[in-house]
Amino acid sequence: MNGNGMNTIELTLGIDIGGTNTKFGLVDKSGKVYLRESLNTEADKPAELLFNRIFKKLATAQKQLPGNISIKGVGIGAPNANYYTGTIESPPNLSWQSVDLIKLVRRHLELPVSVTNDANAAALGEMKFGNARNFKHFIEITLGTGVGSGIVVNGEILYGHDGFAGEMGHVIIERNGRQCGCGRRGCLETYASATGITRTMEEILSSSAENSLLRNLPESELTSKKIYEAALDKDPLALQAFETTGKYLGLGIADAIHYFSPEAIILFGGLAAAGELIFEPVRRYTEANLMSFFRNKVKIIPSGLPAGDAAILGASALIWHEIS
Amino acid sequence: MNGNGMNTIELTLGIDIGGTNTKFGLVDKSGKVYLRESLNTEADKPAELLFNRIFKKLATAQKQLPGNISIKGVGIGAPNANYYTGTIESPPNLSWQSVDLIKLVRRHLELPVSVTNDANAAALGEMKFGNARNFKHFIEITLGTGVGSGIVVNGEILYGHDGFAGEMGHVIIERNGRQCGCGRRGCLETYASATGITRTMEEILSSSAENSLLRNLPESELTSKKIYEAALDKDPLALQAFETTGKYLGLGIADAIHYFSPEAIILFGGLAAAGELIFEPVRRYTEANLMSFFRNKVKIIPSGLPAGDAAILGASALIWHEIS
Repeated sequence: MNGNGMNTIELTLGIDIGGTNTKFGLVDKSGKVYLRESLNTEADKPAELLFNRIFKKLATAQKQLPGNISIKGVGIGAPNANYYTGTIESPPNLSWQSVDLIKLVRRHLELPVSVTNDANAAALGEMKFGNARNFKHFIEITLGTGVGSGIVVNGEILYGHDGFAGEMGHVIIERNGRQCGCGRRGCLETYASATGITRTMEEILSSSAENSLLRNLPESELTSKKIYEAALDKDPLALQAFETTGKYLGLGIADAIHYFSPEAIILFGGLAAAGELIFEPVRRYTEANLMSFFRNKVKIIPSGLPAGDAAILGASALIWHEIS
Repeated sequence: MNGNGMNTIELTLGIDIGGTNTKFGLVDKSGKVYLRESLNTEADKPAELLFNRIFKKLATAQKQLPGNISIKGVGIGAPNANYYTGTIESPPNLSWQSVDLIKLVRRHLELPVSVTNDANAAALGEMKFGNARNFKHFIEITLGTGVGSGIVVNGEILYGHDGFAGEMGHVIIERNGRQCGCGRRGCLETYASATGITRTMEEILSSSAENSLLRNLPESELTSKKIYEAALDKDPLALQAFETTGKYLGLGIADAIHYFSPEAIILFGGLAAAGELIFEPVRRYTEANLMSFFRNKVKIIPSGLPAGDAAILGASALIWHEIS
C-alpha cells in the first residue's frame, strides 16, 4: 500500500525486437498484460533511436494506467541476442552490427535488464505463463520462417558455454538434403519451417500429376497458410505436405529426446496452429523413431501462450525469472 | 588428527559394475587411488552375492592400508543405472532384472550412495580428475563396444526428467543406415563404436579389390585392435576405415554442438586410444559440418583419466560430487 491507499502493482517491461515490428508491454507476475504497444523496428536506423521511441511511447502510455505501478526490470527477446553478453551480434534482418542492449536500456531506466533470443524467451514464457508451468525439462520448438528451440533443463534455459546452445533448427535431419540459409544442407529448418512446408509442397506438386487446389497458384502465392487451407479442404497433396513436414519434425524430435529425455515437447508458432494436421504425424513419427524406453512418455503439445501476446510474455518471463 | 596423532584420510568407495568384471577402489579427493580390486561379476547369480563379495574383499584389503581411513560415501557406475532411482533395470549383459543398488550397499555401510551409468561416471571422473577440470560445459563420449555419452551442462550431468538423458549413441546419424541392437537403423553407435569400425572395415574389404593386411583374416579375428595395427602400418584400407569412422563421429559431434554449444568434446575408451588416426578425421568432419559461429571454438581432446583406473575414478567422482 502506498500513501494513496492503493496497491502498487509490480510489473516488468517485455520487449520483443523483430525484423519489421517491435512489440513491448507491461506484464505482472501472473502473466496479465497491462499495456501492449507496437512500433516499426526501422532496422535501417541506429538501434538507439528504436529505444528512444520505445521509452517515449512507454512514458505516454503509462499515464493511462490505473493505479500505481512499479517496473521491476526489463526483458528483451531478439534474434541472435546473447544472454551472457547482453548484446546482439549481426542479427539477420537488422542492419545493426553489434548492439549492447543492456546499455541502451540503462540510458532510460536503471533496472535489471536481461536479454535472450526469441526461442528462449518463448520457452521461458511457456514455463511461467503457458503450458510448461509444471515442467522442468522440456523443449520449446518455434516454427516460423525458420525453426528455433529453447531447451529447458532442470528449470533453466540451456545456454551452453557461450550462450549459443539450442540451435535445433540447424541439426542435420537429412544428409545432403535441402540447401539451408546457413550454408549447409539438410537442416531441420529447411523441412519443418513455414518455408520448409512450402518447399515440400512445391516438390510434391512437381512430382505428382494429381489434381490439387494449389496446382494453379503462382509460386509467390504458395504459402504455408494456403497449404493449411487446402489441407482443411482435404486436398490430398496438401495433406501429403503436412505428412512429410510432420515426418521430418518427428525425426528431429526423436533425436532430441535421446539427448534430453524431456517431459514434453511444445510446438509454438504458425505451423503449430495447424493443430492435428501437424501434431498427428509429428507424434506418430516421433514415437516410431524412439528407443523402446523413451516410448509413450513424452508429451507433444501446443503452446499455451496467446498468439498476440506471446512475444511480450516471453520477454517479460525472462526478467521475472531473473529477479524472482 | 585422531588419537594416534595420525591424519585420517578421507576416501570414497568407487564401484564399476561390468558384464564380466566388477572393479572397485578407494579414492581420495585428489584422485589418488589407495586400493584397487577386481572381481568376476558372476552376473548369472543374484546381485546380492556380488555385493557380499565386494564388501568382504574390501574389509580384508582395507586392513593393509597405512594410517586411518574414513570412507565418506559410495559411488557406483553400472550399465543402465539410474541416478534418480538408484536402480538398474534389465541391464544388458547382466541377467538381473531390477536391482536396488542403494539398498544392497546399505546392508553393508550406512553411507551416502549414488548411482549412475558408466558414461556419466566417466564424465564426472573427467571433470574431477581428468581433462575436464576447467570445463563446465562438455560432452564425454565413450567409445567401446557401444557408444555412450555423459553430457555436462553448467557443471552438472544432464539426466533429463527421468535419468535417461545422454543417449547420444542412439541418435540417428544415417537415415535407413546400419541395423542397431536397439532395433532401429543408423544409430551413431553402429558406426563409431569398436564394433562399428569393424563393420566399416568389412564393408571396405568386400567392396575393394585392393591389397590389405587384413584381407585374409578370418572374420572372427577382425577386431578394432587389428584395424588399428594395420593403420599404424599404413595399410590404405585400414586408414580408410578410420577416415569413415571419424567422419560419422564428426557428423554426430557437429549435431551435438548445435544443441549444447559446449567448450569441449572428450573422447574416452578403446577407439580414442588410436590417437590422431581417429582425432584428425573427427576434428576435420566436425568443423566442416558446423554453422559458422560454432567453428574453431570447440576443443576435441582425449580423456585424461588413466585407462586402468578410469572406471573406479568415475564412480568415486560421482559420490565426491554429491557430498562436496
